[in-house]
Amino acid sequence: MLYTHNNTNVRVSLPVVCFVWQTAMVILFGVFIRYNAESDVRWREFRRTNNISSDIENDFYFRYPSFQDVHVMVFVGFGFLMTFLKRYSFGAVGFNFLIAAFGLQWALLMQGWFSSLDTDGKIKIGVENLINADFCVAGCLIAYGAVLGKVSPVQLLVLTLFGITLYAVEEYIILSILHARDAGGSMVIHTFGAYYGLAISWMLYRPNLEQSSRLQGSVYHSDVFAMIGTLFLWMFWPSFNSALTDHGDGQHRAVINTYLSLASTVLTSVAVSSLFQKQGKLDMVHIQNATLAGGVAVGTAAEFMLMPYGSLIVGFFCGIISTLGYIYLTPFLEKHLKIQDTCGVHNLHAMPGVIGGVVGAITAAAATETVYGKEGLINTFDFDGDFKGTTPSRQGGMQAAALCVALVFGIGGGIFVGCILRLPIWGDPADEDCFDDQFYWEVNQEGNIASEIVIKRKSVFIDLCKYNHEIIICNRTTYIYLLQITYSLLDVVLSHCVTR
Amino acid sequence: MLYTHNNTNVRVSLPVVCFVWQTAMVILFGVFIRYNAESDVRWREFRRTNNISSDIENDFYFRYPSFQDVHVMVFVGFGFLMTFLKRYSFGAVGFNFLIAAFGLQWALLMQGWFSSLDTDGKIKIGVENLINADFCVAGCLIAYGAVLGKVSPVQLLVLTLFGITLYAVEEYIILSILHARDAGGSMVIHTFGAYYGLAISWMLYRPNLEQSSRLQGSVYHSDVFAMIGTLFLWMFWPSFNSALTDHGDGQHRAVINTYLSLASTVLTSVAVSSLFQKQGKLDMVHIQNATLAGGVAVGTAAEFMLMPYGSLIVGFFCGIISTLGYIYLTPFLEKHLKIQDTCGVHNLHAMPGVIGGVVGAITAAAATETVYGKEGLINTFDFDGDFKGTTPSRQGGMQAAALCVALVFGIGGGIFVGCILRLPIWGDPADEDCFDDQFYWEVNQEGNIASEIVIKRKSVFIDLCKYNHEIIICNRTTYIYLLQITYSLLDVVLSHCVTR
Amino acid sequence: MLYTHNNTNVRVSLPVVCFVWQTAMVILFGVFIRYNAESDVRWREFRRTNNISSDIENDFYFRYPSFQDVHVMVFVGFGFLMTFLKRYSFGAVGFNFLIAAFGLQWALLMQGWFSSLDTDGKIKIGVENLINADFCVAGCLIAYGAVLGKVSPVQLLVLTLFGITLYAVEEYIILSILHARDAGGSMVIHTFGAYYGLAISWMLYRPNLEQSSRLQGSVYHSDVFAMIGTLFLWMFWPSFNSALTDHGDGQHRAVINTYLSLASTVLTSVAVSSLFQKQGKLDMVHIQNATLAGGVAVGTAAEFMLMPYGSLIVGFFCGIISTLGYIYLTPFLEKHLKIQDTCGVHNLHAMPGVIGGVVGAITAAAATETVYGKEGLINTFDFDGDFKGTTPSRQGGMQAAALCVALVFGIGGGIFVGCILRLPIWGDPADEDCFDDQFYWEVNQEGNIASEIVIKRKSVFIDLCKYNHEIIICNRTTYIYLLQITYSLLDVVLSHCVTR
Repeated sequence: MLYTHNNTNVRVSLPVVCFVWQTAMVILFGVFIRYNAESDVRWREFRRTNNISSDIENDFYFRYPSFQDVHVMVFVGFGFLMTFLKRYSFGAVGFNFLIAAFGLQWALLMQGWFSSLDTDGKIKIGVENLINADFCVAGCLIAYGAVLGKVSPVQLLVLTLFGITLYAVEEYIILSILHARDAGGSMVIHTFGAYYGLAISWMLYRPNLEQSSRLQGSVYHSDVFAMIGTLFLWMFWPSFNSALTDHGDGQHRAVINTYLSLASTVLTSVAVSSLFQKQGKLDMVHIQNATLAGGVAVGTAAEFMLMPYGSLIVGFFCGIISTLGYIYLTPFLEKHLKIQDTCGVHNLHAMPGVIGGVVGAITAAAATETVYGKEGLINTFDFDGDFKGTTPSRQGGMQAAALCVALVFGIGGGIFVGCILRLPIWGDPADEDCFDDQFYWEVNQEGNIASEIVIKRKSVFIDLCKYNHEIIICNRTTYIYLLQITYSLLDVVLSHCVTR
Repeated sequence: MLYTHNNTNVRVSLPVVCFVWQTAMVILFGVFIRYNAESDVRWREFRRTNNISSDIENDFYFRYPSFQDVHVMVFVGFGFLMTFLKRYSFGAVGFNFLIAAFGLQWALLMQGWFSSLDTDGKIKIGVENLINADFCVAGCLIAYGAVLGKVSPVQLLVLTLFGITLYAVEEYIILSILHARDAGGSMVIHTFGAYYGLAISWMLYRPNLEQSSRLQGSVYHSDVFAMIGTLFLWMFWPSFNSALTDHGDGQHRAVINTYLSLASTVLTSVAVSSLFQKQGKLDMVHIQNATLAGGVAVGTAAEFMLMPYGSLIVGFFCGIISTLGYIYLTPFLEKHLKIQDTCGVHNLHAMPGVIGGVVGAITAAAATETVYGKEGLINTFDFDGDFKGTTPSRQGGMQAAALCVALVFGIGGGIFVGCILRLPIWGDPADEDCFDDQFYWEVNQEGNIASEIVIKRKSVFIDLCKYNHEIIICNRTTYIYLLQITYSLLDVVLSHCVTR
Repeated sequence: MLYTHNNTNVRVSLPVVCFVWQTAMVILFGVFIRYNAESDVRWREFRRTNNISSDIENDFYFRYPSFQDVHVMVFVGFGFLMTFLKRYSFGAVGFNFLIAAFGLQWALLMQGWFSSLDTDGKIKIGVENLINADFCVAGCLIAYGAVLGKVSPVQLLVLTLFGITLYAVEEYIILSILHARDAGGSMVIHTFGAYYGLAISWMLYRPNLEQSSRLQGSVYHSDVFAMIGTLFLWMFWPSFNSALTDHGDGQHRAVINTYLSLASTVLTSVAVSSLFQKQGKLDMVHIQNATLAGGVAVGTAAEFMLMPYGSLIVGFFCGIISTLGYIYLTPFLEKHLKIQDTCGVHNLHAMPGVIGGVVGAITAAAATETVYGKEGLINTFDFDGDFKGTTPSRQGGMQAAALCVALVFGIGGGIFVGCILRLPIWGDPADEDCFDDQFYWEVNQEGNIASEIVIKRKSVFIDLCKYNHEIIICNRTTYIYLLQITYSLLDVVLSHCVTR
């Protein structure tokens, strides 16, 4: 009846990785990172030199409210969305916190080297860099969703370190070399992040994961906690998709498109969830996840002239596809492709991300001067500098190429990192110990007895049925007698407690 | 011991309503909805034409932070406020989510036809429309509070469809025809929404609702979840009341007035709650709800020169009235007027809404040029165009008339919609099944055994008292013996679990 | 086995204090408080007179998003952070709500008299005053953390009344007389608040507090609730530290510094938490609290040219010190200095606050024209008016003096207020009743039976071990038999429930 646990002791590896890493960050920041013109104390001189009439023109005031919304999505949104498991809430919200704080520093450096490097060899940062760092981290948190409960915190830090690095390169290729547009990161963040996580999950396939199946579900309150995550993601997604778009109409339009797409998704998710469950009951998993698919899918095209009805259509189909994914595709992936996808990121991020990339490519290719105006076309797609005179159809092609890059980086990078994570040095849990906080967290056992009983009871019950059926099928007198004893016992305990 | 459930199967009706409705929305949006000048890609040309000096003058930057706060109030605030019931948290937060997403699309159309219709027959939308749509939805969510736990999701969608329609007409009459002011919607949103819901609840009166009384209360954690809703509503109410007021001082003043009124309400709510409970203990129901009444009541007058002490006075009395309402009025309404008001919306929205309308009328009628200045009077009350030369006293009269319109639409509309909802086709639950998530949601029964026992135990206990008193009144030796057995049994189970 | 409870009935005192106080507020606001130029209806005239080109230049648009973030920190952040105790969530979030709403009104008056008093003897308020009031309240909420669970709501109101008063005087001395800078309040808010609370806790030392030790811990879900508080504090701390800094680069830079410092703290907190626990498991107490220390410690220097790597370094050491504080210092303080610090505010606010003050002094003293520019130096440190020509090194000295003032006011004020709170009239709970909501809140006992059993069980169990070991060490047959009975009993109860 006893079994051997894996060694999940991370008392050496976790502190070492954190300290070494954080020290490296201090040094690298000391060498490379400086304030940019808008956050430096010489901003007033800059204002005068550049004839900027007011402090309110500082990019800070255009983007800070959106930045804070994105920040909430990354830490509360992703963190709480993953608390749905009955005994992995600490890991969900706590490791999410850890890897986000870890990742954003590395992202500032990596993205800085590629895009904010000044002539003096320094990276000059402002609010836009903070948003970009949060975006970059979001990609890794999506990947975390695929391996939730099955890896150690040290593995997560490794996953994040490589994830950020791959992301920065992929982003550079997509945005700078291919000159694709991807405001809300359907391709750069969601497609990449989801396939990165799925590929890692495939590499770390656990054939005996059903040994922890007792913990692979939710309890009532954990589902309510997860709704906190869902709602903050849903509400602030318009800020996510508009955080880095053009000042003025760019941000305004991205908000409207995302708002509409998300609303549409809710209705079709509910419809499909009800249609495919016995008695038409809704499934919290679908409400928690599939309702967000519209935000993912409208990410690339949010800043384009997608039109309000276009956004509704995108949301309409994503709600259907994502919910069907949860019902049919996730079990299929696990059974036939050996991909165990804890949070269903394939349904929430991968498929909608690819759809978003395709919608973006089509919308870009279909852009006309009639709709955008000559100036609008140039501004929206940045057809200037090296890319002056690019045609919309060519831009559409570039968008499609960008989607392929995201897929290649996600899958390829995931396989590579998965190989590293298979080394037997990371302190990952045994198959029986997955989805259980107690291996990485001090859990007050006393407070958990009640839920432990409840959790373990079902599996025990099956064994017992053969023994105790003669007692259950007893006559009415015995029934009442047993009932009496049960309540008496409970009362004795309670009266003891109360008088104590 | 068995009873017949109503048929709560919504497997056909819910998907059909959602799909048909969402398809209709796509078509109507395709025909009618376009971006407005500030969200359209031609914004730069518009800026040049209208001599707008900077992108920051785009209305987006004046209103987007407030919009997001309102959005949080609608989805997290209202949603979590209703999670207080022990077994209806999924329904509270999930159906709130569904009907808000459903309603806001219809609101964009309905309100657009009345107020944003351009000369080309298109509705041009921007951030202000999104805020208005959220406001409109808030009215229906208030109505949901009155019928929480007693209706099916399909009934809620019908309630919302008609609610939005009625709201848009009522709003048009109040704001455009009567030319009343109602920044935070004391009349338009709260009075209308609350009486709409109460009238529906009256039409759907359930004489045997005490059959589900075991579920009509909270448990410890559900009360904490509800406080999430309370606090986000309370904190962001200043944004709610200022979201659509005039740029500059209008938004600034509305925030200050609301902030102060809410602070005042908290203290008087606490005072009355403590005063009217045995031993001075506080009741979470009052803290969760009555503390918000000040925000409702200051809604109409928030943009006027109500003065800081005026706001405090409004909050002072609303805290008292609302708390007393929970203590005396809600039981009275249920017993004598056959209005079953699950969340007490009469105390939180109806009475404070009416007070808000009256305060608004008085404040408007009392406005003088000494306080407002000539220009201020014209700007605050929009005394131009057709309404040039309106006197404050006439404006006060119009405000009073507006309150009557809100009442008539709320009560009349509610009775009408209530008639429709009484049809036996909507899949509503039986009296015994109210306030129970399991009829519309897949609830993991395993995880709920513990709470099920706790919930049902009390009613069972009463039956048993007659049987088992001889066991309870046993001698000391038996007491200890039973105690021993209880713990032994628990330990056996636990050791079995742990070694497994 | 029975013991005498203290009289915790606050049915007279709590309502009286609330009503008298709120009435006094109405009168004082009537006499003193008016809108300022930016929130008054004459803003348009003010704009013309002062050549302000646009409504967007109203201070409201510079500070309102930050204000709302601060508001969330005060009500949700502090409130939920303290919900970690298993049976004190109502008190944590509810009393936090009460004293914040109470305190902010008094803060508007006190701070107004010192800093916003106009020539006509009126206090003119705008969004900056609201932020300052929230800051002031934060100081008292920190103090609440030290006495959480051990005081009555009336004592908390007294604590807040004096706390706000002391704060306003201390703030005036520090900011106006000493002319120190303290953007995020490392000294003014955190050092003062923490030592104020600790001194009160020392005065109210309870030698027999271990009698309620059964309640001095968390359960699984209460720890997840506390993470809501942690994350909202963590995410919005950049807004806290930047809410009142200079427009433009001042706000921008404070955000960047705080963001980085907080990220760095997370990693070192995790590292130390893992390093000092057996098997390297993480402790939720550290993750909930120590991760925030970096935000406190960067408070004073956030607006200075601390440089990104400087922020990382501050966060690095604060994470270590704060976590070590939880492991070693809190037990030491309780055992040897008789300071019972429920939430560990010494580790989260006191030590990081002092560090913040020191870092601020050093950074100010080290400021040079090379880094800041002549104009930057004057703007950042407000070297004009009476303080024209102040040197950075003198400013550094003033910063150090300011830290001493905060310490003296905190400790001295706390001892004074502690004396008052020792009077036997406040309805505080007995030692056995601490950390228990049921003495000040109507708690639905029914719903709590399960957790009651769980909570009390451990202590009972120890008594029983001597009795029941002969039953546990039974043979295999008896084992199976007992197991059967247990499950049968549970099933009987359940089947009874389900068929009912």
